[in-house]
Amino acid sequence: MSDHPPEIPIGIEDVREAARRLEPWAHRTPVMTCSAIDRRAGASVFLKCENLQRVGAFKFRGAMNAVLQLSEEERRRGVVTHSSGNHAQALALAGRLAGVPACVVMPRTAPAVKRAATEGYGARVVPCEPTVEDRERTVDRLVEEHGYVLVHPFNDWRVIAGAGTAALELIEQAGPLDAIMAPVGGGGLMAGTCLAASGAMPEARLVGAEPGRADDARRSLQVGSILPSDDPKTVADGLRTSLGPRTFAVLSRHLERIVTAEEPEILEAMRFVWERMNLIVEPSCAVPVAALLVGRVPGVEGRRVGVILTGGNVDLDPMFRALADRWLGDGP
Amino acid sequence: MSDHPPEIPIGIEDVREAARRLEPWAHRTPVMTCSAIDRRAGASVFLKCENLQRVGAFKFRGAMNAVLQLSEEERRRGVVTHSSGNHAQALALAGRLAGVPACVVMPRTAPAVKRAATEGYGARVVPCEPTVEDRERTVDRLVEEHGYVLVHPFNDWRVIAGAGTAALELIEQAGPLDAIMAPVGGGGLMAGTCLAASGAMPEARLVGAEPGRADDARRSLQVGSILPSDDPKTVADGLRTSLGPRTFAVLSRHLERIVTAEEPEILEAMRFVWERMNLIVEPSCAVPVAALLVGRVPGVEGRRVGVILTGGNVDLDPMFRALADRWLGDGP
Repeated sequence: MSDHPPEIPIGIEDVREAARRLEPWAHRTPVMTCSAIDRRAGASVFLKCENLQRVGAFKFRGAMNAVLQLSEEERRRGVVTHSSGNHAQALALAGRLAGVPACVVMPRTAPAVKRAATEGYGARVVPCEPTVEDRERTVDRLVEEHGYVLVHPFNDWRVIAGAGTAALELIEQAGPLDAIMAPVGGGGLMAGTCLAASGAMPEARLVGAEPGRADDARRSLQVGSILPSDDPKTVADGLRTSLGPRTFAVLSRHLERIVTAEEPEILEAMRFVWERMNLIVEPSCAVPVAALLVGRVPGVEGRRVGVILTGGNVDLDPMFRALADRWLGDGP
Repeated sequence: MSDHPPEIPIGIEDVREAARRLEPWAHRTPVMTCSAIDRRAGASVFLKCENLQRVGAFKFRGAMNAVLQLSEEERRRGVVTHSSGNHAQALALAGRLAGVPACVVMPRTAPAVKRAATEGYGARVVPCEPTVEDRERTVDRLVEEHGYVLVHPFNDWRVIAGAGTAALELIEQAGPLDAIMAPVGGGGLMAGTCLAASGAMPEARLVGAEPGRADDARRSLQVGSILPSDDPKTVADGLRTSLGPRTFAVLSRHLERIVTAEEPEILEAMRFVWERMNLIVEPSCAVPVAALLVGRVPGVEGRRVGVILTGGNVDLDPMFRALADRWLGDGP
């Protein structure tokens, strides 16, 4: 991408400031433990439940932190982003709460339920073709026509600082940690986690997790430049993106390593969390848990490991049809 | 049952003592809010997440409180109960943690997964015929042969006081409440909730919830004696039991009313909690939420209502088969 990654203009103080800014708006989500996970992982695992955050994902933190920093004039113009995932709903809700118009560019191929949820929070949804080129063209056009302020899903310092507040709370709630893990898609959460931890708990090791089928960030850090992600086939749909220059810069400086998990391992870990913790987590969220359960994170034996559970947005419709068939089969 | 219901020998101090006793053992579960539920209910609803308790249900509190009060001699003899539900796993885990042998009488017809879970916590499972008579005969025989101490699932003051600690925490965590709701099966949780609330927040209204198809407790309180529950057909399998003399006595004195929810309402409320809160709750747990969502609780408009989410033990197997078919359909 570039031999000169961008400077990193933010640090722990920006994460702390974001935490103060978000305090009236974001849930302080609980940190849970589970003895069955501890036994399998051979470690004490502290799970920061951002699946219980507003809109069901950590993404609310970054989007809200960005919207709350707009000038009066920017607030009038409104915000725009491109996402078919949790960031879409996060920006939509942040806009509604702050009274700022929000517009989301979403591929025509996105599930109707995602579009409806985003519109349900009051955002305008503009469809685009499912290509990077058309997505960027559409965003550029909207910025030009309406003066919208772009809030990128991850390559944005305000979004990164906001995402980092989850790790800051985790550290406050769980106490000393030997390692902190999070999934890596575009890298916004992991970058924020790095900035929070390197300031608030510098001795903690920082470990990312990716699906083996979408390990572009791991390879990017190895070769020292951003490798594109080529529409990888993984159930972890939130982790198909490649890094941006800003998240790449932070991860290059702070991340110890990225571990991977395979598809059946991801689904098994997801099911483990559902069954043992009664928490709904999405496949992307289960990736670091999977790596811990199958023993793919070196050096955590007997240690205290924090993991950010990122989100729980799963289409439950086929599951509930299966349940309803069984339970209401005998009729009223 | 009797014209002279038993004296009520316990009160708020016993619940507070149980809370101190349980502090090293039970999770202090979070209290969550959900704006979508508030909008539908027209009230501020505070959900005490006992589905995130150990063994996935509030039942751990009562079982552990009972086991921790055994004498040295009783500890050596061990405990016994009859249950095919959450109390079975709760007593099994309580026994394991306290180093007390536990034995659970379970109907032959109980799902293999329930039996395996109970044995997984180290309890001995003794099968019986699926009738009340054989269940009691089997328990009596085990008590006689082995000297086991019976820990009844709900008609036991130690179990009632332990269950009440959930409401005590809810009151501490949520602040002033105008009403507190819980489901009513055998009545142990609701009785404990009554004792906790009447001591710690006497102005709160106390409202139970039952499936319309299993409203034996509602009718029992109306007629003033315990009506048996005749194997009712409801998805809320935890609420098929009838009251016991002790829970009947407490509910008769303290409960304002019992509201009901119909089967499709229960399933819809359950799905609402899964989708909007990313929490897995079982059908029995969804009953008070259902009553709130359909507006069947009088006088809560604009009020602060506490609800105990009782548990989340659902057999997820058919659901995960539906998901795996869809997600791994394209194969590795």
